Amino acid sequence: MSQMDLGMSERVKPLVEKVRRMMQDEILAADAEYHAEVGKAGDRFKFTDRQNEIREGLKAKAKEQGLWNFWLTDSERGYGLNTVEYAYLAEEMGWCVLGPEIFNCSAPDTGNMEVLERYGTEEHKKKWLKPLLEGKIRSAFLMTEPDVASSDATNLDFKAEKDGDEWVFNGEKYWSSGAGDPRCSVYILMARTAARDSGVPRHSQHSMFAIEAGLPGVEILRPMTVFGHDDAPHGHMHIRFTNVRVPADALLIGEGRGFEVSQGRLGPGRIHHCMRAVGQAERALKLMCERSLNRTAFGRPLAKLGANYDIIAECRIAIEQARLLCLKAAWMMDQGDARAAAPYISQIKVAAPNMALKVIDEAMQMFGGTGVSQDTPLADMYAGMRTLRFADGPDAVHRMQVARKELKPYTNTKV
Amino acid sequence: MSQMDLGMSERVKPLVEKVRRMMQDEILAADAEYHAEVGKAGDRFKFTDRQNEIREGLKAKAKEQGLWNFWLTDSERGYGLNTVEYAYLAEEMGWCVLGPEIFNCSAPDTGNMEVLERYGTEEHKKKWLKPLLEGKIRSAFLMTEPDVASSDATNLDFKAEKDGDEWVFNGEKYWSSGAGDPRCSVYILMARTAARDSGVPRHSQHSMFAIEAGLPGVEILRPMTVFGHDDAPHGHMHIRFTNVRVPADALLIGEGRGFEVSQGRLGPGRIHHCMRAVGQAERALKLMCERSLNRTAFGRPLAKLGANYDIIAECRIAIEQARLLCLKAAWMMDQGDARAAAPYISQIKVAAPNMALKVIDEAMQMFGGTGVSQDTPLADMYAGMRTLRFADGPDAVHRMQVARKELKPYTNTKV
Amino acid sequence: MSQMDLGMSERVKPLVEKVRRMMQDEILAADAEYHAEVGKAGDRFKFTDRQNEIREGLKAKAKEQGLWNFWLTDSERGYGLNTVEYAYLAEEMGWCVLGPEIFNCSAPDTGNMEVLERYGTEEHKKKWLKPLLEGKIRSAFLMTEPDVASSDATNLDFKAEKDGDEWVFNGEKYWSSGAGDPRCSVYILMARTAARDSGVPRHSQHSMFAIEAGLPGVEILRPMTVFGHDDAPHGHMHIRFTNVRVPADALLIGEGRGFEVSQGRLGPGRIHHCMRAVGQAERALKLMCERSLNRTAFGRPLAKLGANYDIIAECRIAIEQARLLCLKAAWMMDQGDARAAAPYISQIKVAAPNMALKVIDEAMQMFGGTGVSQDTPLADMYAGMRTLRFADGPDAVHRMQVARKELKPYTNTKV
Amino acid sequence: MSQMDLGMSERVKPLVEKVRRMMQDEILAADAEYHAEVGKAGDRFKFTDRQNEIREGLKAKAKEQGLWNFWLTDSERGYGLNTVEYAYLAEEMGWCVLGPEIFNCSAPDTGNMEVLERYGTEEHKKKWLKPLLEGKIRSAFLMTEPDVASSDATNLDFKAEKDGDEWVFNGEKYWSSGAGDPRCSVYILMARTAARDSGVPRHSQHSMFAIEAGLPGVEILRPMTVFGHDDAPHGHMHIRFTNVRVPADALLIGEGRGFEVSQGRLGPGRIHHCMRAVGQAERALKLMCERSLNRTAFGRPLAKLGANYDIIAECRIAIEQARLLCLKAAWMMDQGDARAAAPYISQIKVAAPNMALKVIDEAMQMFGGTGVSQDTPLADMYAGMRTLRFADGPDAVHRMQVARKELKPYTNTKV
Repeated sequence: MSQMDLGMSERVKPLVEKVRRMMQDEILAADAEYHAEVGKAGDRFKFTDRQNEIREGLKAKAKEQGLWNFWLTDSERGYGLNTVEYAYLAEEMGWCVLGPEIFNCSAPDTGNMEVLERYGTEEHKKKWLKPLLEGKIRSAFLMTEPDVASSDATNLDFKAEKDGDEWVFNGEKYWSSGAGDPRCSVYILMARTAARDSGVPRHSQHSMFAIEAGLPGVEILRPMTVFGHDDAPHGHMHIRFTNVRVPADALLIGEGRGFEVSQGRLGPGRIHHCMRAVGQAERALKLMCERSLNRTAFGRPLAKLGANYDIIAECRIAIEQARLLCLKAAWMMDQGDARAAAPYISQIKVAAPNMALKVIDEAMQMFGGTGVSQDTPLADMYAGMRTLRFADGPDAVHRMQVARKELKPYTNTKV
Repeated sequence: MSQMDLGMSERVKPLVEKVRRMMQDEILAADAEYHAEVGKAGDRFKFTDRQNEIREGLKAKAKEQGLWNFWLTDSERGYGLNTVEYAYLAEEMGWCVLGPEIFNCSAPDTGNMEVLERYGTEEHKKKWLKPLLEGKIRSAFLMTEPDVASSDATNLDFKAEKDGDEWVFNGEKYWSSGAGDPRCSVYILMARTAARDSGVPRHSQHSMFAIEAGLPGVEILRPMTVFGHDDAPHGHMHIRFTNVRVPADALLIGEGRGFEVSQGRLGPGRIHHCMRAVGQAERALKLMCERSLNRTAFGRPLAKLGANYDIIAECRIAIEQARLLCLKAAWMMDQGDARAAAPYISQIKVAAPNMALKVIDEAMQMFGGTGVSQDTPLADMYAGMRTLRFADGPDAVHRMQVARKELKPYTNTKV
Repeated sequence: MSQMDLGMSERVKPLVEKVRRMMQDEILAADAEYHAEVGKAGDRFKFTDRQNEIREGLKAKAKEQGLWNFWLTDSERGYGLNTVEYAYLAEEMGWCVLGPEIFNCSAPDTGNMEVLERYGTEEHKKKWLKPLLEGKIRSAFLMTEPDVASSDATNLDFKAEKDGDEWVFNGEKYWSSGAGDPRCSVYILMARTAARDSGVPRHSQHSMFAIEAGLPGVEILRPMTVFGHDDAPHGHMHIRFTNVRVPADALLIGEGRGFEVSQGRLGPGRIHHCMRAVGQAERALKLMCERSLNRTAFGRPLAKLGANYDIIAECRIAIEQARLLCLKAAWMMDQGDARAAAPYISQIKVAAPNMALKVIDEAMQMFGGTGVSQDTPLADMYAGMRTLRFADGPDAVHRMQVARKELKPYTNTKV
Repeated sequence: MSQMDLGMSERVKPLVEKVRRMMQDEILAADAEYHAEVGKAGDRFKFTDRQNEIREGLKAKAKEQGLWNFWLTDSERGYGLNTVEYAYLAEEMGWCVLGPEIFNCSAPDTGNMEVLERYGTEEHKKKWLKPLLEGKIRSAFLMTEPDVASSDATNLDFKAEKDGDEWVFNGEKYWSSGAGDPRCSVYILMARTAARDSGVPRHSQHSMFAIEAGLPGVEILRPMTVFGHDDAPHGHMHIRFTNVRVPADALLIGEGRGFEVSQGRLGPGRIHHCMRAVGQAERALKLMCERSLNRTAFGRPLAKLGANYDIIAECRIAIEQARLLCLKAAWMMDQGDARAAAPYISQIKVAAPNMALKVIDEAMQMFGGTGVSQDTPLADMYAGMRTLRFADGPDAVHRMQVARKELKPYTNTKV
């Protein structure tokens, strides 16, 4: 009788094996070529034919083998994998940016599809969920805003106002990841539907909407950059809405229930992010080990010099621990009590990105100049990973959650 | 079908619950009183009546409930617990020094009993194993030597020479933990039986012996102290052997097979140490949380000041990760491939004590002066834990093992 | 024209040289013998003849060479050394516990002498200051209390009440360092002279007193221990006062001016502590280097194994930085603007003890078991240094001060 | 009499003040505009008119005020500033990339000018040194090679062979910083002039040359990128030399004396880099403080949340310590004993970039997503600073130097 099985199930093992083989044998190399193509179509946010060919070719191949939509947990249409099983796949897919998309498991689409499945109308499902499940369109999640500390989401100020049968949106969103993709067709968007001083409770002042991308009044102001990268053609867009009108049924579940949707959406998303972070760390450690054996200085391979053994060991120890914690958080989710799982998700949300950054940084250092250059993927990996220390909540907020939970047994009063 | 079950089995759950209750309700308080008695018998290495009463009373109570000899993995006489199951018990017992002895699960006895069971003669078993299993006598493990870097155990130089039907021992051992206990009746001892330049392979120059404690020629020179503590009446003794003679059958398994015995002995022992370290960390975190809520400065409970939430959260995150890694190492052992388990044991041997020291240190700091004083157990906990960064191999040696394993797939030549 | 001279002046160089020679050649060895004598007089808080002989012999020798009362900055009776000059001497004297006393530069006497000189009556000076300057008696500083978070000193609750011509004291103090010394003759003591809710401003509710040690009603409850050490015969005493009566002139400067005195007292004291911490770190690094060259494992001196070069280098880098910051804080004090110097003192108060602990800890690890044992001074050094992270204000409070100062230029409102 | 004056001299104070004002009031803003122009001339390695206008306008203004060529230490043509004085200026100029060039104090020009002044022919001086001193041309230093671990410079394999009256160069160099600048007219280049197995001592197998940029046979293969930045138009170029011929007098000082030149060149250069790193850290801390006060979450400014005070304080403490160590290293250089100064330079070369990275990283975290985006300079600062952990020698090599020096007094044999 299994109590806390964190291993790979027999069911998922062959899937992991196939995904791993495809990642290592094809997708890592394809990813490099794919990203080297960016901009060759004139506009960095357009695809070249070669990009379409690479991506769709790999997707077709994955689909053909049934390596598709793994994230559909407990669903008839998917494998019905649990979170622990999915976590192992996420790690493999996370070795490079292109990975998850090939298997239709990319952020923010997976979370958005869940939202649409759970809360969308039939029309929403037909129009957006179906093509998303087929990998034909993409989506974005519009939450963060430029003018407020979005780490405290009750600050969000982007406005949705009811006007007859329609909702009217005004405000700015940024870090809208994926909104740059020319295929992006739908936004899941959080907006304030009650004023701060309306008397409505602070956590019921916001609502979630599903709206068509690129409606009149929507201006994409610019891509936000990450260490100078625009991450085209995905993009983290800064978007302005001016009197953008959508039909009443764009509202999901009900007015004032935005946090309910966002919380349900973010939990699994954080675990996926973290397991991909573990994948990134494994990749960095592999590169570090290879370099340490292939490069010679002072007459010996780097591995044998100074602290390098210790560095390699510390990286391995850190990876193992973070992976296990991530699997435990996944397992907690699978137990069905989201409230109980939450502090574990916060824990790993702090631990995994910091661990991965450390490993990538050590790998960089083993490579010297090559480590920050275009000759290794390390700098891109570092930049991408660095955002994970605030995306979906900064470290400090997650630590606050963990501490609150920790202190609860010792106090009757709210801490 | 369980792949890597790191949870508590149904079988062990009630045991853990009982041990926890006994530890929290009785043994923690008894431990304080027990250690406060040290020295009152005149000699710090003698027991007072009150000590005997406390200890034997608790042991009887534990035995009565069948909470005894948990470490006997896969044995008819014990529960046949696997290493993962035992690990959960070790964590609970590890909250204080007295804990493990109450359940007859103390180091170095558990390891020594395993050695006697596996390699001892019938005579050995009758004379030492049986009373050890009954908690009537105690034992010591004599390995470390003062004059060589014992972290590289091939350096060990204490001599055993065959003289007719007897072995003759000459040399010094120190950090012989438990040798100070007046009940200590048997030493498991590693000695050099082939000279360095004998042509015998380096890992076959040593042998393991089981010998009676306190034979003629054995002088206990002094207890080694740990941050000034002699850890009486257990004691980490410095012992000199001068022409100490024992019968031929003191030799276990065979000449030159000392490392085989010590390796088999140290693997599980390290896991036990590490899980007890997790228990220590949990205790420190509990103390820290309580203090942070009960103490006020600048008008607020300490918990709400500065970085204290972050500190508490980081401690929790660190504990969770170390525990999981420890459980994984235990699970690896249970798979039966010691070679495959070894690097995991090395990983946790580095990770757990460093984690526990960090948590204990943060707890101290939350308490201020009280944290290093007799008014909390923290300083004793710190001192004890500090030794675990070199006992059974220093961090650096374990990191070396981890790195070697990590680099192996990338090289054909030995690194 | 000197702007920020952090070097040794020509004047202080020969003093440093003489102190160093005496420390290295005589006092380090004497310190070990001196502390080994503790308890041999029956009572750990009594001196043996040998202790008196060692200590007074060295003091006489130091005095003879004029190596005495260096701390008397800008005084006719001393060398008139500035704080930077004194800092170099403090580092040398700080290598072992006995060091400062030999040169009559011990805490808490130096600070107490300054208080008496500045604020004492003629009677106080005659009775206590003169023999203190001559090294004939010793003193204690009674500030910290068991029942409140003394890190926020406005919490202090020990009461002094005026009753006719006398003050009457009631309450408990602990961590009263030096109060265990049989020669201790005077206490400088902080007491609450206005109730919390008296309407008196929070920083004017306390007053400072100079009172005779051991008056009727004073009970020494116990020595507080530090990692189990009672630091006898110096001692950090827990003392209870019950209706202890002293004459009116025990009050220094004036009612409600306790913080004024304590602040003036603590600034230089913190710098002295920090420079002694630098001395401790230098001693630990020296021991570490020697060990790394004298001990062999895996066929090479420890120095050449793994990360040891890196560890040694990091220790050296950390020491250099902390020393320089300490010297800068000293130099700031010498500029005469205590307010401007304060954040530098807070900076070094955080940096120096943490640095020294790290260096001592690394030294321990290089020694293995020997590092925590009686065979090296490292564990005692660690224990002593650990208290410096809360003595005279915990890290967190000093960091708060530094941050406040840092943020000030960016805000008009108080942060 | 000054012993170790690390303060600003009266002489340099007004210079620092003027440079600071010009940096803060003009150059920081100009730097942003200047870099935003990159690429607008079609080729990223060409300047736009606006760039020329910005840069030359500021240079003219600086020159006019005599803020020019500060690096010319002890020279009739400069201010004759010593290294400590220059260090204070370097810190101010280091706040942004454009800073140093405005005052003709950029790397690698300053080092190259020193080389030309000391070892160049009259012809070299006329052709290159004069226009460099006037800010009319720029230069590059070609040392690092793609195919060897250049951290051990004896590995360098780029070949220079004597052929009659000429030297013939073959090989590749990369990370040739500044070689992308269209004004770059001269390369200082290190080449192997004796084969590894020639019997020539290992440190005499290389020679230094001054050669015209862009000769026939020189191909610029690509700019190396740093976290994806090509750092155009400066550029870190990868260059291939195929039978490039230069006249005999291109050889500086003498065959086999390459290390002599490079060592002399790198010492001060490292100090300059480190003081600029201190400037970068100050800038990051300023941004962090402002953000912490201007941004609100959970109803309070970020500064007042969680660990933010502690983070700000730790950054200030780290900056102060690194600056002081840098000033001490500078002061050591000014004492004229390069051998004695070397370990201090290694110390700061490890300490300063790591400190600056930590501060910049914390600043990023305070800003959340904005911290890695184009809306703050932090990500660019981080990327640039990250290279300093291997440029001019990786941390590990510098730590090795520090440890060697540290261990020397304890051993007679070479460690």
